[in-house]
Amino acid sequence: MFRLTVRDHVMIAHSLPHPNFGPAQNLHGATFVVELTLCRPELGEDGTVIDIGLAAGVLSEVLADLNYRNLDDHPALAGVLTTTEVVARHVAERVVERLPTDALSGLEVLLREHPDAWATYVLEL
Amino acid sequence: MFRLTVRDHVMIAHSLPHPNFGPAQNLHGATFVVELTLCRPELGEDGTVIDIGLAAGVLSEVLADLNYRNLDDHPALAGVLTTTEVVARHVAERVVERLPTDALSGLEVLLREHPDAWATYVLEL
Amino acid sequence: MFRLTVRDHVMIAHSLPHPNFGPAQNLHGATFVVELTLCRPELGEDGTVIDIGLAAGVLSEVLADLNYRNLDDHPALAGVLTTTEVVARHVAERVVERLPTDALSGLEVLLREHPDAWATYVLEL
Amino acid sequence: MFRLTVRDHVMIAHSLPHPNFGPAQNLHGATFVVELTLCRPELGEDGTVIDIGLAAGVLSEVLADLNYRNLDDHPALAGVLTTTEVVARHVAERVVERLPTDALSGLEVLLREHPDAWATYVLEL
Amino acid sequence: MFRLTVRDHVMIAHSLPHPNFGPAQNLHGATFVVELTLCRPELGEDGTVIDIGLAAGVLSEVLADLNYRNLDDHPALAGVLTTTEVVARHVAERVVERLPTDALSGLEVLLREHPDAWATYVLEL
Amino acid sequence: MFRLTVRDHVMIAHSLPHPNFGPAQNLHGATFVVELTLCRPELGEDGTVIDIGLAAGVLSEVLADLNYRNLDDHPALAGVLTTTEVVARHVAERVVERLPTDALSGLEVLLREHPDAWATYVLEL
Repeated sequence: MFRLTVRDHVMIAHSLPHPNFGPAQNLHGATFVVELTLCRPELGEDGTVIDIGLAAGVLSEVLADLNYRNLDDHPALAGVLTTTEVVARHVAERVVERLPTDALSGLEVLLREHPDAWATYVLEL
Repeated sequence: MFRLTVRDHVMIAHSLPHPNFGPAQNLHGATFVVELTLCRPELGEDGTVIDIGLAAGVLSEVLADLNYRNLDDHPALAGVLTTTEVVARHVAERVVERLPTDALSGLEVLLREHPDAWATYVLEL
Repeated sequence: MFRLTVRDHVMIAHSLPHPNFGPAQNLHGATFVVELTLCRPELGEDGTVIDIGLAAGVLSEVLADLNYRNLDDHPALAGVLTTTEVVARHVAERVVERLPTDALSGLEVLLREHPDAWATYVLEL
Repeated sequence: MFRLTVRDHVMIAHSLPHPNFGPAQNLHGATFVVELTLCRPELGEDGTVIDIGLAAGVLSEVLADLNYRNLDDHPALAGVLTTTEVVARHVAERVVERLPTDALSGLEVLLREHPDAWATYVLEL
Repeated sequence: MFRLTVRDHVMIAHSLPHPNFGPAQNLHGATFVVELTLCRPELGEDGTVIDIGLAAGVLSEVLADLNYRNLDDHPALAGVLTTTEVVARHVAERVVERLPTDALSGLEVLLREHPDAWATYVLEL
Repeated sequence: MFRLTVRDHVMIAHSLPHPNFGPAQNLHGATFVVELTLCRPELGEDGTVIDIGLAAGVLSEVLADLNYRNLDDHPALAGVLTTTEVVARHVAERVVERLPTDALSGLEVLLREHPDAWATYVLEL
């Protein structure tokens, strides 16, 4: 089995209005460093999991919709607690809508929120 | 499936008194950079794998018991070869004792001993 | 000459309301990874540039005043363009107010805003 | 389950003569940072997955055969598209030939080609 | 004094035909991770050292001229030993030709050739 | 001006028997990741600051004398508080004894003791 990972990042504002989040209930922000991993049982005829330019392009496109935004005002995330886990799933779902996934067996999206914490969403295809 | 990882570190002395370890049989030491990963099939109602403050706090508490110590003199590790693998398992087992794991499906503890070597213990729950 | 560096981070929202900043004029956010470096010509009698706990504590205190905040609403930064460079200088100036600097010859504050960009403020003392 | 990872690197030239690769069809090169991960259900009697010196030595030996070479002229890779995925599998297969794998349940080879892209080959044993 | 750094990378082939370079006399390659640092005594009226998009764009443009190339065949580097130090200087000189440097006091170009070695060219302006 | 940096690491035990060091007065240990930087006004005729193999070899040799040791028992460090700063200076001084420094204008040794703290000794030549 093979995996290919491409990395990008996005800079967003948001708040987490739920008593569990303490000071993170305030409007604040994050740089999310985003790693998209695609899994495939066998390589294609060109020796790759996927065209790396395509993978990076789709990730960049999905992140462009979040970048330099306040997620509290983003229509697709209205009323959603945009934890790192939830944003990871949101990115994964948007990637799956845009990428041909027939040959893939799975996909992971990892978001690093700071050097000491990160979250991953794992999707089997 | 989701994963959440928190990172911390610990500075210890130890020796590895077994002929396989060459010069590491001597008393020496390490900074272990420790990554605790928790796995959960579905998110909780607050959109998280676990309260990140709780996870980081438990990891910190477990590491405090090792930090600035000579593991050769640590009661819980008497007579044990404290390889990176063994310390990873020790940390994982102490975390599991302190953390509510009902909703979790697994846990990993990764210890980086230097930039070119690390070990992981994987526990299914 | 010696330098000691301690690292921490802070998660903030802000906007950059000046036409030069394109989409960053919107409310967005950042994780700033912050490195505070202190310079000293000779070591103190305990073989250090400064008590590392003191340096880390002061940095943490200064960052706590920014953490989980929207800098656009921060009284000390009202009407200021909070670029990475300006926040680096702000952090440095707050550190200097709290830290004994008699023995030091200089101080630097570096802020990483994402993996591909960072800024530093250098202060000679 | 346990994993041990050792890291090394290799500097190679190659071209990717297939229309999918755009400018990478030209002769160019890469530093591949290589992570070899070995998986084992239970630790050996010395508390390790494997002798770390042995693992690092075998990886280094396998990479020495590629290092400072043009892969287009390497006999074992003649006519092969040496994508990151393919080189990862090549390294894994050469490691398996040299390493006692009876106690192991799996092996992964990850190659980082630049800070924003990497590929992994996963082999179950 | 302030510094701004932007990071990018480039993948090249080259050889180092001089007896000092041992096996690196062969045609091989490298991923150079490139950090461009610009120094300025005081900030501009928009609170920056320079427009970060301009700095990143110029660096990208300069690297595009090297990327996916064999430096042995690059007209501007004919007969030159393209060591990491020399490529760092080449990048710095090309950046200076394209960037307005009136307000700057200096510039550094750092090239990482692998995780354990890097070189910097420092230019006072 | 040019700089060349090579990186290596060393794993040591030590204690810091001075009341300023709190729990670090206990016998504990560290992985020091060591970066040796050499500065030179102009490049040599082979386009380098120094033969990188020579620089890496000397650093490795100097670190071998500390590696897998308890610094409290090291003859050259008897009665010395082996803080990160002091070990950085010790490494720098041992490097200068072994390396031809005629062409160099300076040298720095940086020791990372954990991801959030490091110290540097700067020596002008």
